[in-house]
Amino acid sequence: MLSQTTLTIHTQGRGTYEVTDRVQAVVRAAGLKTGLAHAFIHHTSASLILCENADPTVRHDLETFMARLVPDGVAWLEHNDEGPDDMPAHIRTVLTQSSLTIPVTEGRCALGTWQGIYLWEHRHAGHRRRLTVTVQGE
Amino acid sequence: MLSQTTLTIHTQGRGTYEVTDRVQAVVRAAGLKTGLAHAFIHHTSASLILCENADPTVRHDLETFMARLVPDGVAWLEHNDEGPDDMPAHIRTVLTQSSLTIPVTEGRCALGTWQGIYLWEHRHAGHRRRLTVTVQGE
Amino acid sequence: MLSQTTLTIHTQGRGTYEVTDRVQAVVRAAGLKTGLAHAFIHHTSASLILCENADPTVRHDLETFMARLVPDGVAWLEHNDEGPDDMPAHIRTVLTQSSLTIPVTEGRCALGTWQGIYLWEHRHAGHRRRLTVTVQGE
Repeated sequence: MLSQTTLTIHTQGRGTYEVTDRVQAVVRAAGLKTGLAHAFIHHTSASLILCENADPTVRHDLETFMARLVPDGVAWLEHNDEGPDDMPAHIRTVLTQSSLTIPVTEGRCALGTWQGIYLWEHRHAGHRRRLTVTVQGE
Repeated sequence: MLSQTTLTIHTQGRGTYEVTDRVQAVVRAAGLKTGLAHAFIHHTSASLILCENADPTVRHDLETFMARLVPDGVAWLEHNDEGPDDMPAHIRTVLTQSSLTIPVTEGRCALGTWQGIYLWEHRHAGHRRRLTVTVQGE
Repeated sequence: MLSQTTLTIHTQGRGTYEVTDRVQAVVRAAGLKTGLAHAFIHHTSASLILCENADPTVRHDLETFMARLVPDGVAWLEHNDEGPDDMPAHIRTVLTQSSLTIPVTEGRCALGTWQGIYLWEHRHAGHRRRLTVTVQGE
């Protein structure tokens, strides 16, 4: 069993956007019982993460951490054609994930109790992001 | 050919725990010749890495590096319900991997000579960690 | 449909080397229409990334960032058997990816417009790096 679906996610600027339900819906529609689900983001300034899904402070702190690790607008980063968040967005993407692979068990992504799937928009402006979910199994 | 097995790993606090042999045993039991093995950890405060497996100093240094990059107990991280290592554990997980996919060749994970599979416990307390290994191929 | 091919990439020291065309050629030769392509590097001092492929300054800045984040030759990293870039190479590998999984759509890796596949050599000396590409689908 193999299925592939492309989703569109509209972001409203830098931050994390939960997409767990949308990915689970694709897996459910695929109708497999056991296998793997793969989500891929077709961009280099937004990424995917698995993150704690209960306390929003976790994602707030994650943003704080990343803003300190990869500050916007520093002089030693030269690529800034699209602004001070241009190169930081590429670095943040490289330090996180462009794709996630998750086991499918009993017809669902077998996430841990506290695991949510998030799209992390790294640009300050909102963007239309494409995400392809591929499901393989039986 | 598709098989899925869930392993339990007991950790004794922060540090790396080699799981190469346990993953290889699952792959061997699956009985495939060629394909992919996928290991997934169902937690947001422990992760998986592929790391040099010969000199323990490498993992010691990795721990030193990460403790400097994401220090415990800093005032600018707010989520500390479970203690000063709570939020750092989530960040360390996001900066590493929640899953690894490894080619299977001639019935085994085709790791490089120096590649070992490690579970990285990011909390100071020991935990019972769940790891699901999914194998697909022929 | 399942195919597995091992490529050899010769690097000339630290830096990024685009391998998009070589991976796409393996996928094309596999002759599938839809599925997943998985690239795996069998080393712990070189890694794989998806990165912006239009402006070389992006990869230059990425190198600048990583050299600041994980400096060569610092006293607090003990593993330096092979020189001041030995342990930094392992850390840089852990912070990026040892494998990439990319959807295959209409017989090609469905990369975004600006996504290229790069091997990132983290050692200062050139190396012969092995990369295994596994393709599964229909």
